Amino acid sequence: MTWTSDAVTEDGVAEREFVIERDGSAIPGVVWSPSQGVADRLLLLGHGGTADKRADYIQEVARLAVGRGMEAVAIDGPGHGDRALDDLPLDQEMVDLERFEDVWHRGGGTAGIVADWQVTIDFIESQRETRPTGWWGLSMGTMMGLPLAAADERISVAVLGLMGDWGPNGADLVRLAPDVICPLWFLVQWDDEIVPRETSLALFDRLGSHRKTLHANPGAHAEVPASEVMASIGYLDRYLR
Amino acid sequence: MTWTSDAVTEDGVAEREFVIERDGSAIPGVVWSPSQGVADRLLLLGHGGTADKRADYIQEVARLAVGRGMEAVAIDGPGHGDRALDDLPLDQEMVDLERFEDVWHRGGGTAGIVADWQVTIDFIESQRETRPTGWWGLSMGTMMGLPLAAADERISVAVLGLMGDWGPNGADLVRLAPDVICPLWFLVQWDDEIVPRETSLALFDRLGSHRKTLHANPGAHAEVPASEVMASIGYLDRYLR
Repeated sequence: MTWTSDAVTEDGVAEREFVIERDGSAIPGVVWSPSQGVADRLLLLGHGGTADKRADYIQEVARLAVGRGMEAVAIDGPGHGDRALDDLPLDQEMVDLERFEDVWHRGGGTAGIVADWQVTIDFIESQRETRPTGWWGLSMGTMMGLPLAAADERISVAVLGLMGDWGPNGADLVRLAPDVICPLWFLVQWDDEIVPRETSLALFDRLGSHRKTLHANPGAHAEVPASEVMASIGYLDRYLR
Repeated sequence: MTWTSDAVTEDGVAEREFVIERDGSAIPGVVWSPSQGVADRLLLLGHGGTADKRADYIQEVARLAVGRGMEAVAIDGPGHGDRALDDLPLDQEMVDLERFEDVWHRGGGTAGIVADWQVTIDFIESQRETRPTGWWGLSMGTMMGLPLAAADERISVAVLGLMGDWGPNGADLVRLAPDVICPLWFLVQWDDEIVPRETSLALFDRLGSHRKTLHANPGAHAEVPASEVMASIGYLDRYLR
């Protein structure tokens, strides 16, 4: 559990890398902070399948969050990014669900990623004080974040979506969704070609939160409108207090 | 087609009544305008079943719209308000779908209310200039507004919802939904005890607009969160240009 780079500052955002050790495995992560002042809230960013902690849209969301005075953190998910499995490379251009499922489970699966994130939060809290903490993660970002929000009451608000009662850890999501009770914003792409629409609606239905809101827009899995991404950060900003 | 009262001003909102004649029937309406300055946009308000043009929430939406520099107008729907049928009174406390269906059809139904609204827009435009025009109407407000938006290209943005491919004019809604092509915001109450959830999702699916967004929240038919009502006016404000 250590910083592996000095902070690099650009456009008011300071970026710094770290590595967590858990059960003998190294889990690399990035923290984005305001270069001036103190961030009094923390946002955890879960990347999507075949992406990683430095995916363009993750960096974009991180910068939006920092712009609102939050600190953002991302780690690589099971079998993704710097944790890629040599014999199971992922192709970002082609969705291979069977291979994705193998990577997810071989890389650590649901229990592993929840533990990874809890160690990550512990590390960040050891470096700073304990702060209101939220989650932003779509698709595989929800496969990671929903179980985390169910298991760890430090998560007080979440942006989830592009996922259903379906996929590599669909049974975990079904089982754990009622335990998620924080306010949450759930995104659905109406014409999602990967996650069947009905499975997304069913997962939203199972989530335990009294305060949950679903936003659906036309378009394919990766075509979330930029306005929804912007608005989702506004939602976190309102609830992360 | 005439004003039936002088403007009454309260809290910056001027309110004035009118009556339209169509096919020998009188259709009463209300216009809400900013008491100062000129409203350069028009918002049509469709009330819900058993309500009327002066329902509390219609007046609230009118005031929000005027606060953003729009003029708002409402008329009584088929068999509602001052157009109530003597032998078919509506009970606001008890939902009687069979009676509601009778009232809708005897009061003029889909074709009648589209014509009523078109004459209303003509009247308002004869008094003012032609302005960008939007629709806000949930439940029976969507039974009225969806066919109007399909028929009249003067409607350039709409807030719809709490309605499905279902109800007294469900067949009309199914037939006309693909002809609605303006940007629209569609509200669903996830636990709607009147309009089955599946029928709402199916109606949203049929709407022809490329730019449409669905917002769903937990709660019963009449429990739309105040934050969604506020945000829906913000949506109209952005698109009504």
